[in-house]
Amino acid sequence: MSDLPKSVAINEEGPREGFQIEKGPIATARKVELIDALSDTGVKQIQIVSFVSPQAVPGMADAEEVVRDFNPKPGVRYTSLWLNDRGFERALACGRLDVSGSITLTASETFLKRNQRRSMAENLEAQRRIVTHYKANNIPVRRGAIMAAFGCNFEGDIAPSKVMDLLRQILDVAAEQDLTLSELTLADTMAWATPASVKRLVGAVRERYPSLRITLHLHDTRGMGIANAYAGLEMGVDSFDAAVAGLGGCPFAAHAGAAGNVCTEDLVFMCDEMGIDTGVNLERMIAVAQLAEDIVGHPLPGSVMRGGALKALREKRH
Amino acid sequence: MSDLPKSVAINEEGPREGFQIEKGPIATARKVELIDALSDTGVKQIQIVSFVSPQAVPGMADAEEVVRDFNPKPGVRYTSLWLNDRGFERALACGRLDVSGSITLTASETFLKRNQRRSMAENLEAQRRIVTHYKANNIPVRRGAIMAAFGCNFEGDIAPSKVMDLLRQILDVAAEQDLTLSELTLADTMAWATPASVKRLVGAVRERYPSLRITLHLHDTRGMGIANAYAGLEMGVDSFDAAVAGLGGCPFAAHAGAAGNVCTEDLVFMCDEMGIDTGVNLERMIAVAQLAEDIVGHPLPGSVMRGGALKALREKRH
Repeated sequence: MSDLPKSVAINEEGPREGFQIEKGPIATARKVELIDALSDTGVKQIQIVSFVSPQAVPGMADAEEVVRDFNPKPGVRYTSLWLNDRGFERALACGRLDVSGSITLTASETFLKRNQRRSMAENLEAQRRIVTHYKANNIPVRRGAIMAAFGCNFEGDIAPSKVMDLLRQILDVAAEQDLTLSELTLADTMAWATPASVKRLVGAVRERYPSLRITLHLHDTRGMGIANAYAGLEMGVDSFDAAVAGLGGCPFAAHAGAAGNVCTEDLVFMCDEMGIDTGVNLERMIAVAQLAEDIVGHPLPGSVMRGGALKALREKRH
Repeated sequence: MSDLPKSVAINEEGPREGFQIEKGPIATARKVELIDALSDTGVKQIQIVSFVSPQAVPGMADAEEVVRDFNPKPGVRYTSLWLNDRGFERALACGRLDVSGSITLTASETFLKRNQRRSMAENLEAQRRIVTHYKANNIPVRRGAIMAAFGCNFEGDIAPSKVMDLLRQILDVAAEQDLTLSELTLADTMAWATPASVKRLVGAVRERYPSLRITLHLHDTRGMGIANAYAGLEMGVDSFDAAVAGLGGCPFAAHAGAAGNVCTEDLVFMCDEMGIDTGVNLERMIAVAQLAEDIVGHPLPGSVMRGGALKALREKRH
């Protein structure tokens, strides 16, 4: 058990992940209600919108309104996602968000073309260009990210060597601009990871770049989300993207089924029970998960919100 | 990864777990349909009914009819569950089942009283009595089992030392009858286990009794099922109870929410992807999971049946 971290950071992505894929339409006020409720759970970072094409992702057409209306809580970072310069400009123009840049590559060209209409070469060039843009705007760039890092519904398994090669390209782009990245997101965008492949890839990255702090972005589409998070914890990973109630999924990943992110409150439950601090109040997060179900109007995949936490049962006993 | 077993045995309990808790009523013919479909998946052991009071568990009132009507497949063991002498007599009378005895204690007296209306002392005495009965009927007794081994909704956490004490009592009862047990089921009846507590308890048992083969019976009520199974695999556990589509739950465990067993096809998926042989054909098990949903008439918790296996995606690629 000695490899488990003492505390983990959770980056809540439920609003962004959920509202980009839910058919809805969901009223702006209800999106804001979810974000504000999340702000009271103790989570320190929340990704609240994505700035993407409203034609491609209608559920994010009101991103500016959401950002305008939510009530920021001191001590919480509110972030957004963008995939190109136009999205970045929109994020910046809002003025209320924590805007920091990342250098993001995708391990599957087929998926990249569907998701961002770019080839690998075009995407690398786009990263070069946007990093220049970040620098010109004094936007900090600390993070690299690799999407589809474990496998792709279109291209199959992704070899760790391919990920390592992309990571080198990311670090090269950073170096060209005299930037030093300290964080790396490995995203299992289409839910191909298993505990074994998580250990393999995290181990490869840590061996080569021990100072990079790894964040795992996991999807639970094939039921492996929490097991993969546990495998990450065993490798010392102390940063996770997660979505309350298991909201979410990528609209371009060609999943027939449930495609949500690893569920925040289930992850918090596991950490709590294993003595790992998340800073998140589990009971409050469960209440937000129930709110999320009310907002989307259908059951969501989270388990602990139905099965119940253990704290109340323990207290009843005493 | 070197601790992972090369192969695991899966004991399919979907019919027993599912039909004891589903409100139904479910026609006997459909129960038989599920069992027969499971027989074609490659799974080598299926628990098909429980012989319990039809007043307490109406869904099992037709246990004899189910046993009479199913079509046994050579090479598959068909078992049943009973909790007292009367149930054992019913199982024996059916004539078509693999009847072997176990010595089963429960780590929570409160749960024991609700589930079996017995005190700890009465249950120990009942085990003594039924083992004599097994011997008189030439019924093999190879297995010990401990229910609520990780925690209890009524009594809270269960210390590993308590489980070790119960295990010693089980082995003592066996020894009194010149029996040597080779197998032990540790049941997380009310879903209190985490990967850390699985490792702790399995480690304690293996250190003291290295020759006992451990089976984990895991519930997914709080979303930890697959992660707990992975923790078991890491400790070398190579035998799991599981239920197709995540059917099931104990009617006396006081769960408001989804209470199913760890899902067979999700477990098979994880094993397949990590190179662990289960003998089960994943695509067929997914088809049975879909059949199970059709039979119970509502969605079941399994993930891979919705998210899809990876084999077809890999093949499409080639």
